[in-house]
Amino acid sequence: MLGSTHGTLTTDFRARVEACGETPRTAVHSTAAPSAEDAPALDVSGRPLHADVPDLDRFFRPESVAVIGASDTEGRPNTGITRQLVAWAERVGARIHPVHPTRTAVFGRPCHASVADLPEQVDLAVLLVADPLPVIEELAETKVKFAVAFASGFAETGDEGALAQARLTAAVERSGLRLLGPNTNLNAFQEFREDLDGPAIALITQSGHQGRPVYTLQELGIRLSHWAPTGNEADLETSDFISYFAERPEVGAIACYVEGLKDGRSFLLAADRAARNGVPVVAVKVGRTETGARTAASHTGKLTGADTVVDAAMRQFGVIRVDGLDELQDTAALLARARKPVADGVVVYSISGGTGAHFSDLATEAGLTLPTLSEARQRELHQWIPDYLDVANPVDNGGHPVGDWRGRKIIDSILADPSVGVLICPITGPFPPMSDRLAQDLVDAAEATDKLVCVIWGSPVGTEEAYRTTLLGSSRVATFRTFGNCITAVRAYLGHHRFTASYRSPFDEAPRTPSPSFRKAQALMRPGQQLSEHAAKQLLRAYGIRVPREQLVTSAAAAVRAAGLVGYPVVMKASGPQLAHKTELGLVKVGLTSASQIRDAYRELTDIARYENVPLDGILVCQMIERGVEMVVGVTQDDLFGPTVTVGLGGVLVEVLHDAAVRVPPFGEDQARRMLTELRGHALLEGVRGAPPADVDALVEVILRIQRMALELGDELSELDINPLMVLPRGQGAVALDALALCR
Amino acid sequence: MLGSTHGTLTTDFRARVEACGETPRTAVHSTAAPSAEDAPALDVSGRPLHADVPDLDRFFRPESVAVIGASDTEGRPNTGITRQLVAWAERVGARIHPVHPTRTAVFGRPCHASVADLPEQVDLAVLLVADPLPVIEELAETKVKFAVAFASGFAETGDEGALAQARLTAAVERSGLRLLGPNTNLNAFQEFREDLDGPAIALITQSGHQGRPVYTLQELGIRLSHWAPTGNEADLETSDFISYFAERPEVGAIACYVEGLKDGRSFLLAADRAARNGVPVVAVKVGRTETGARTAASHTGKLTGADTVVDAAMRQFGVIRVDGLDELQDTAALLARARKPVADGVVVYSISGGTGAHFSDLATEAGLTLPTLSEARQRELHQWIPDYLDVANPVDNGGHPVGDWRGRKIIDSILADPSVGVLICPITGPFPPMSDRLAQDLVDAAEATDKLVCVIWGSPVGTEEAYRTTLLGSSRVATFRTFGNCITAVRAYLGHHRFTASYRSPFDEAPRTPSPSFRKAQALMRPGQQLSEHAAKQLLRAYGIRVPREQLVTSAAAAVRAAGLVGYPVVMKASGPQLAHKTELGLVKVGLTSASQIRDAYRELTDIARYENVPLDGILVCQMIERGVEMVVGVTQDDLFGPTVTVGLGGVLVEVLHDAAVRVPPFGEDQARRMLTELRGHALLEGVRGAPPADVDALVEVILRIQRMALELGDELSELDINPLMVLPRGQGAVALDALALCR
Repeated sequence: MLGSTHGTLTTDFRARVEACGETPRTAVHSTAAPSAEDAPALDVSGRPLHADVPDLDRFFRPESVAVIGASDTEGRPNTGITRQLVAWAERVGARIHPVHPTRTAVFGRPCHASVADLPEQVDLAVLLVADPLPVIEELAETKVKFAVAFASGFAETGDEGALAQARLTAAVERSGLRLLGPNTNLNAFQEFREDLDGPAIALITQSGHQGRPVYTLQELGIRLSHWAPTGNEADLETSDFISYFAERPEVGAIACYVEGLKDGRSFLLAADRAARNGVPVVAVKVGRTETGARTAASHTGKLTGADTVVDAAMRQFGVIRVDGLDELQDTAALLARARKPVADGVVVYSISGGTGAHFSDLATEAGLTLPTLSEARQRELHQWIPDYLDVANPVDNGGHPVGDWRGRKIIDSILADPSVGVLICPITGPFPPMSDRLAQDLVDAAEATDKLVCVIWGSPVGTEEAYRTTLLGSSRVATFRTFGNCITAVRAYLGHHRFTASYRSPFDEAPRTPSPSFRKAQALMRPGQQLSEHAAKQLLRAYGIRVPREQLVTSAAAAVRAAGLVGYPVVMKASGPQLAHKTELGLVKVGLTSASQIRDAYRELTDIARYENVPLDGILVCQMIERGVEMVVGVTQDDLFGPTVTVGLGGVLVEVLHDAAVRVPPFGEDQARRMLTELRGHALLEGVRGAPPADVDALVEVILRIQRMALELGDELSELDINPLMVLPRGQGAVALDALALCR
Repeated sequence: MLGSTHGTLTTDFRARVEACGETPRTAVHSTAAPSAEDAPALDVSGRPLHADVPDLDRFFRPESVAVIGASDTEGRPNTGITRQLVAWAERVGARIHPVHPTRTAVFGRPCHASVADLPEQVDLAVLLVADPLPVIEELAETKVKFAVAFASGFAETGDEGALAQARLTAAVERSGLRLLGPNTNLNAFQEFREDLDGPAIALITQSGHQGRPVYTLQELGIRLSHWAPTGNEADLETSDFISYFAERPEVGAIACYVEGLKDGRSFLLAADRAARNGVPVVAVKVGRTETGARTAASHTGKLTGADTVVDAAMRQFGVIRVDGLDELQDTAALLARARKPVADGVVVYSISGGTGAHFSDLATEAGLTLPTLSEARQRELHQWIPDYLDVANPVDNGGHPVGDWRGRKIIDSILADPSVGVLICPITGPFPPMSDRLAQDLVDAAEATDKLVCVIWGSPVGTEEAYRTTLLGSSRVATFRTFGNCITAVRAYLGHHRFTASYRSPFDEAPRTPSPSFRKAQALMRPGQQLSEHAAKQLLRAYGIRVPREQLVTSAAAAVRAAGLVGYPVVMKASGPQLAHKTELGLVKVGLTSASQIRDAYRELTDIARYENVPLDGILVCQMIERGVEMVVGVTQDDLFGPTVTVGLGGVLVEVLHDAAVRVPPFGEDQARRMLTELRGHALLEGVRGAPPADVDALVEVILRIQRMALELGDELSELDINPLMVLPRGQGAVALDALALCR
């Protein structure tokens, strides 16, 4: 995977490891024992519907800690680490036990020769040794709860290291302890400021260096409660920490830096838990430029790169994805600290009309709602602001009023307006006589309101008193340095609360037992083969998806008879396994209106098939359906998430514009409908140029039935592609005109 | 215009002012007398091909200054301004002359009762009076070169103020002096740091407050040379200052904050001058969310909002548009100071694999080229970097090497690589033992190379020594605070140099005299009317654009005869003025293959027309052309830039996906071709699903002929729309199947 410098094992590697006798942990294992009330917590595809929250209290707040490989000899790398661990243990009040075969004491503490000699059962063992594997075995004996392995040289270094990591994982599974790492670091044992109040950010990073800026937010007064540096995730993974943090009362938001997700389902279940609890998850996920190029026979298969799927999965479960670490900081800080919005309306308030105009322009483009303030409100504001200035929103005070008692009155008046949920004040040019008082007024007003007050301190310098002391000194004002980051964060803030307010977990409604369609469908599967169009359509019919009236014939005479039954005009197509892109090969004839045309077509099609050496199971004589909107609906297997469902605009568009939307099952009808609104060409479904609106309900039904098929057939169905699905005018349904299916 | 808090007069307002007897200055006036060698410097549309550079030396460095309305009475608003002007005059060594009817001295300087009493001819008069109009008249007598008017209450306050501003403009034109303002401020008289070296940023802003962050860059060591606060632009406008700054040797880049452009052509001419001189122009232009919704009968008319046109015009002439003031600062600073790139290759170097992976991901997505370093180079780097770390690009040093002598060696080795033009080092987590030395090494290495060295200081704090002193202390290292701004700036830097290297001014090749087609075309125009399809096609033929074989008939019998001549199958369409969207009305019949079908069609079309009350000039019997790619090509009048040319993907797409590109004439073949590559559906022209590649050369030829038509017919042609233009397979040309033309 692009840029994965951390050795999370990919699916295909896992396969190779299994082949060599190791069994790395699976999604099922990672979710531990399903709790009784929802057993058997598996959906019809055998994927878990529930993930237990690992109890990490003793990991983050251990009472006793063993340091394996402790040292206090100057110059040894482990000495610095040991020193920091000792200091950390003192801070958190943990008893610390150095372990080293030859030393009697480390930093004045008695040192034990081996794990076996530990004076008590320890909660946490920190492994500073080059090869953690044997130690893990020993620790198993002593019932240690948690271990941390700093050693590098595992999956991040290539296949050999990956094998070593797989062995480590297996040892951990046997041991019953939970492991953080390998290839992790001291970040979990950082000092956190205790003097900051309010909800905190919990941080999860696969790279310690990348987490540093968020950690440093404490110097700006933003509270941090935890830091989980997951490293190679041989055992504990990002998802485990998301689940755990989502249950912690002090956590206001979870910030993640992710290079590679280890298991798609466990990530979704963790995100689902956070969504249920209303805890925002903000993530940087490396991999935007992953091609995810698959060898896909279908169109939809080519539509969605691996990153597109990750992106969709995150949106389905309300994970807020950002690009930069600066956005991660600003968005997580806002979401952690800001109260629930009382309204979606944003008012922009500034001492310069230009600033207000500029910010409003960007905010509106980003989709924020800037309500026009009521006449009454504007009259009130004009008591303090000259009449020729515009106060409808943006509110331009012209500068002077902020220098005196009027400044606070204006802010309070705006905040008092019922249409306003967020007040944003961009201060681009600090001018102490004005901006100092303005900053103080904003801080005071923020203390007195439930509404969100944001300030952008636009000076590139950032050492100004009003910024450092007044604004950063407030835990109620959200302070930003750029227009862009403020807009990104506020949009995420309003979006998160909208999302959680209406969130219903798809796992609660996911099918657990096969539908009657399943048996029929299974009977049609041909392992390792691509089904003929005719067989693929039977598969669709098994799931109640409509296909045209059609007959498979093997003689011209039978074709003519079939046309009579199907009804003129008809379409004739070659049908056979391994047969894709029939149009290009000239193996489709449309608009045939007479017996003679049908006989000619039959001859031509069979001739072409002979010359092109394509085996046929016959010629399809199909009802011709012209009127409707052509869509594609398909199933593709994703390495991380398993089967995914894609819908796109049909015909040439799907190839040229790749106008498609993807979802990871399980998802409900709401998401199926949202897929359609995500399409750039969505308006085609509403009817353009006098065309009637399409039967969107029928389209949504097809998407959901395809999801059901994808879940029930699971891996057996490598790819499915309906292209085109003709969506007829409203009330008339949708018909799959052509289909392609690949069995594993 | 959205967010225009500054009173640049719009075209339609100008019309109203003209109606009331005032003549505001026009584009032609603004370009002053064309210089001899390229007279008559007008293109065929009557628009200037040349803009003189106003000589603003005496404005920015006057020898003598009059302050009209000077005051030193504490508490009077003018007192503070006068004090600053006196201080400024001393700095720049200008003689200052206070003017006030009743005072004898101001700040110890003799005060003159009126402009007439001034002791010498002054270069610059600063008007602190509420109504500058009468003073402008007086100043005209005394041959003052420049005036600045601070007074507000003009166009920014509405129509009445706009009338006052139009009068002011007229007075300025009569006076022969040049005016800055009204509604401007002291920014032009700011102090600039003299201790900074290297090329400087020249700043132009319509809002003083919005310019403050760029001005403040001086505190970070970035040199500024000028600040032009243009206010309402009653006379001097943004374009005048761009032209002037583009000729100043000390100016490395021009940074603009623009709310409303006063005149499109003068802006293009200024940008053209900057492009010729290789001086980058970076601009924030408010108005992203302008709907620019026009009452357009054509499809292309609806495709391009006013902001889309501004955006295209900027790209045509190499103006770099950014969204945020932070991007304006970072991009202008980089472009002002960085030398010409020796290569396009970007290498990412970091002390963390995660950081390298993350940055590379975003940089690649943004279109930067990250070359893989040669095996030899990688071997060299591995002398200092452990073998298991990836040094192909991104280069991950694992941390430790930066702490000692190896750090500098690594940087020098990367910079020595011929594939590398830019080295970017993101330092996300400051860790003094490493990052301090790393920062110093980067600064030292930057001094010793021609290549660009960029650093991202990722700490949100920004008070660290390594950042404030080491990095900001260097004029050779470009320092950023976010990944995003670094990527935006570097992309603009490489793009600017690519652009100017191949820039050819379209004004040099713009047509100055009408083509033979012009007379023919004029004869077809019907003022105030929409031409019938038939007449519109004649217009196209006049410019050598191919239309189908067709005949206009007024009887069924004639239709049958016409079909015989045109050749079966034929299309029949109602033809008449005011007739748009024929398909929706059922006034188009395709694929007619027999005389009887033609007679039926004739009857049906005329019946529908009767019931729909659409006047017909007859029925068109046209050759049927099915095979090809449907495009739309059109002309729309833009308030700011006049006629614009749009090309888009035809059929339903143009309405649903608005997949179109626009250009402002004059533009050359290169831009016409670039329009096509800007289309999302561009691949359709290359042939998909076995379709042959389309005749792109013919399409480009049509675009250029349409541009010619637009220029020659000028305002007379309100709108033109070819929809569809059928682009046939390569070598077979393009045919306009339907056309719509609106005369003014």
